[in-house]
Amino acid sequence: MDKLRIVPLGGLGEVGKNMMAIEYGRNILIVDAGLMFPESDMYGVDYIIPDYNYLRDKGDWIRAVVVTHGHEDHVGALGHVMRSFNVPLYATRLTLGLIEGKLRRAHVLERTALHTLTPGDTVSIGPFVVEPFHVCHSIPDTVGLGITTPAGLIVHSGDFKFDHTPVDGQPTDFAKLAEFAGRGVLLLMSDSTNATEPGTTPSEQVVTEALEAVVREASGRVIIATFASLISRIQQAIDVAGRYGRKFAIAGATMAENVKMGKKLGYLRVPDGMQWALGEIRRLPSHEQLILATGVQGEPTAVLSRLAVGGHSSLRIEPGDTVVLSSHTIPGNEEMIHRVINRLFQKGANVLYESNAPIHVSGHASQEEQKLLLNILRPRNFLPIHGELRHLKQHARLAVELGIPQERIAVVENGHVLSFEDGDIRVGERVEGGYVFVDGKWEGEGIDPSVIRKREDLARAGVCAVALRYDPQLGKLVGSPKVALRGLAIPEALESLLEDAREVVRSTVHQTQPGTSADKVEKRVRHALSDFLYRETKNRPEVVVMALEEA
Amino acid sequence: MDKLRIVPLGGLGEVGKNMMAIEYGRNILIVDAGLMFPESDMYGVDYIIPDYNYLRDKGDWIRAVVVTHGHEDHVGALGHVMRSFNVPLYATRLTLGLIEGKLRRAHVLERTALHTLTPGDTVSIGPFVVEPFHVCHSIPDTVGLGITTPAGLIVHSGDFKFDHTPVDGQPTDFAKLAEFAGRGVLLLMSDSTNATEPGTTPSEQVVTEALEAVVREASGRVIIATFASLISRIQQAIDVAGRYGRKFAIAGATMAENVKMGKKLGYLRVPDGMQWALGEIRRLPSHEQLILATGVQGEPTAVLSRLAVGGHSSLRIEPGDTVVLSSHTIPGNEEMIHRVINRLFQKGANVLYESNAPIHVSGHASQEEQKLLLNILRPRNFLPIHGELRHLKQHARLAVELGIPQERIAVVENGHVLSFEDGDIRVGERVEGGYVFVDGKWEGEGIDPSVIRKREDLARAGVCAVALRYDPQLGKLVGSPKVALRGLAIPEALESLLEDAREVVRSTVHQTQPGTSADKVEKRVRHALSDFLYRETKNRPEVVVMALEEA
Repeated sequence: MDKLRIVPLGGLGEVGKNMMAIEYGRNILIVDAGLMFPESDMYGVDYIIPDYNYLRDKGDWIRAVVVTHGHEDHVGALGHVMRSFNVPLYATRLTLGLIEGKLRRAHVLERTALHTLTPGDTVSIGPFVVEPFHVCHSIPDTVGLGITTPAGLIVHSGDFKFDHTPVDGQPTDFAKLAEFAGRGVLLLMSDSTNATEPGTTPSEQVVTEALEAVVREASGRVIIATFASLISRIQQAIDVAGRYGRKFAIAGATMAENVKMGKKLGYLRVPDGMQWALGEIRRLPSHEQLILATGVQGEPTAVLSRLAVGGHSSLRIEPGDTVVLSSHTIPGNEEMIHRVINRLFQKGANVLYESNAPIHVSGHASQEEQKLLLNILRPRNFLPIHGELRHLKQHARLAVELGIPQERIAVVENGHVLSFEDGDIRVGERVEGGYVFVDGKWEGEGIDPSVIRKREDLARAGVCAVALRYDPQLGKLVGSPKVALRGLAIPEALESLLEDAREVVRSTVHQTQPGTSADKVEKRVRHALSDFLYRETKNRPEVVVMALEEA
Repeated sequence: MDKLRIVPLGGLGEVGKNMMAIEYGRNILIVDAGLMFPESDMYGVDYIIPDYNYLRDKGDWIRAVVVTHGHEDHVGALGHVMRSFNVPLYATRLTLGLIEGKLRRAHVLERTALHTLTPGDTVSIGPFVVEPFHVCHSIPDTVGLGITTPAGLIVHSGDFKFDHTPVDGQPTDFAKLAEFAGRGVLLLMSDSTNATEPGTTPSEQVVTEALEAVVREASGRVIIATFASLISRIQQAIDVAGRYGRKFAIAGATMAENVKMGKKLGYLRVPDGMQWALGEIRRLPSHEQLILATGVQGEPTAVLSRLAVGGHSSLRIEPGDTVVLSSHTIPGNEEMIHRVINRLFQKGANVLYESNAPIHVSGHASQEEQKLLLNILRPRNFLPIHGELRHLKQHARLAVELGIPQERIAVVENGHVLSFEDGDIRVGERVEGGYVFVDGKWEGEGIDPSVIRKREDLARAGVCAVALRYDPQLGKLVGSPKVALRGLAIPEALESLLEDAREVVRSTVHQTQPGTSADKVEKRVRHALSDFLYRETKNRPEVVVMALEEA
């Protein structure tokens, strides 16, 4: 008999972002395909995608990809996934708008069948019936999914929170959740991002009030930096600007694109004459200007960082400016963000950020909301998703407190196959999974972890390259060797160190017997130089020796 | 007439830890000499010290170094400073104990005159009268300093908080503060670390209660990880262990040393028979064991990380273990710490850390305490110290709220010289300052920032080294060139790439005119290879070309 299997491929455990395979017999539904940004010791990695190698020989079974919302950690790997599998893609209208560019850049936009999901729809995909329902999150048009399978009803929360006063006026769809509960829920998979946050996530209304206060009290220009995709935050800023007689302009290409699309699709309400070009708005008095900017995570090449160092082409921070960082700090970005904040202060701006003003709220449910979802649905089984292991564990603890038996809660990592026996969840074998390092500029399949380790070595101590001519018959050096150093912690007396290094090469080769191979000589010189450099610098730089043989 | 000048050399602005010169005429008193750990993009830097070049030609004027407490950010640069200047050093007993090893390793312990400071002392140093007073902090024997100068009384808070129930039973010395206030305070310099934290820092008593709850409820072994220097936290853990019938052992060399010294000097109370060797304690039932461990910032080679990956020689995490991370996360270490926590969960431990249990409190005053100190002393002038610019700005804002006039508050960065005119603070010129990158293993003077940038390049894209033989008279390549790659994002088809790269070398040299110098050929090959590698990998690795000339 066919069985229901769930294979999380991203978004669980230590790292890797959201991707999930839901299988019934020879039918697979993929939910989301996100990316994650590299941690600081993942040298030269541009982004990370889930390892979906497990699906490669099952391409024929995949019925569709269904996407919950347009954030990068849910759609960022779609270019890769849709290049691997030519299957239909389902998403809400705004999400499709945000995805299109990705598919175009991956050269699969033409061939991909795009289907618009609308909350309230009932869509049959193979043996699955998918029912998207509206949830509140920090981007409009986010849905959770009811997925009816022959084995029972699965509810996937998507990224969600219960905001009673959201910017777009639409709270999470309680009626639909109650209806699911009435039908009986086999499995809830629910967002664990904020599982260690007690209480309830504040409403977006709090941010509106804080932004109002900032704009009301600012006597000069106001610059609000936020994520380019945070359409509802952008709406809040535009609304507040309007109420206090300011016009706005956008600094940042992605945000400008998103705003254009948001306006076109009706997700952003911008009164006529409100939006000015960035080059034009400076003609207004400073207290009539509001600038929306990107780069709120301190990314060195983005707008905010360039403002902080004075490197933006058309915008310059001046005393009297108020700069608002309306976002939370993604862990790992603290140092960069704090540098930007300090430099903005240095330039005389008044800077408001999460430590000194309530100018951001999370888009994810806190503990009380996570409990509320569990209690509304009363699922038979529970799978905490979207989080590191520490979040999943904590979310599971909450579920136990609510009376869900421990044995019907699965805390697993990516690649663990989940199945069901008499309606009870079972953790099975672990398939290939994990994550793939992508160097976005290179079109290859991912960077090998050994390459990252080698880059780490290079970063720690630099490199020493040596070229020498060698006569294997005589076992002798020919001419003078060359030594080049890059990234070593060396004193100013570099030339003397280079001469000493060349002398090490000479004396090492000098001890060689006639007939010794060039390979052996390279190895010996490498060891001798490595020891020499360790004595001189107390570091072990990478040493590369190339012996060119005399004919 | 001689003037009072204050020159902050570390601990203010963007980066660099605590060091301060207080000058009167040709007399200089140095307060603290700390280090800072590098941020994640400071490749290969072990630590950072203040740039005190400004003092180098004023060695004869320096009367003494006075140290407030034994944390690295206040004493970590003493090895360097005491090697530069042979002057007396004043510190409390425990602090001297912690400093001794540093001076020994810097080979200046013998020559340095060490003076023990005791709270309540009055010590004359040149024209200065120094009065250390007890303050609460996360290490015992911390003092603030009253410094009477011919121009007036300066109060330096040190690192402090107002804990009414500290572990050692000694609250911050309010009486002394009141006495200073009675005399009139020309200038308060006060700890800004937590200037963005509202309210009051909780008492260490909160941690005692949380640790009690953890140890009481744990059925297996308890492992408490904290900073090696957090002597009072170690005392709390030992006390709690004793109350619940556990013995303790220490994993981590520095902590073991500190405990030994703390016991010897009477700063740690350890009942006989309580401390076991790490190799012995496993003979006890698991519910009678408590392990104190280091590595709480996720440092890859420290005990906790080794436990997380299963790489410790004598200790192994087992299901049923409770692991407590009793510390706060130093910004920049989040990723490493979260990895460690996830892996400990993965091994079956129950992990308690700042997000899910109140097992740490800060050692620094929050806003209400900062205000209290300002209001007790009512200083004429105020200099916020110990913090990034964003903290200093916030601390200054608090002072303004309390009625200190803006113009008598100096928010400055390292190197800004402060002086006084009719009792009012003035910000003067900026002297050499900033910070020095130290590669601790190398005995040199600091790593040039250009070296760090080169390491960053290497980390991003790797290196390609080329050796070739070249006949300048004929303008021809001799024999076959060699190409070596390290850290490139290359496909498995490495050999074909190498062959293509050699072909690029050949064809580039082939176009050379007779008489072209080897330098020029190196440059051309570098450009050609750089372009080739960019086409192949969409990255720009460092390319090092060495052309060996034929005689």
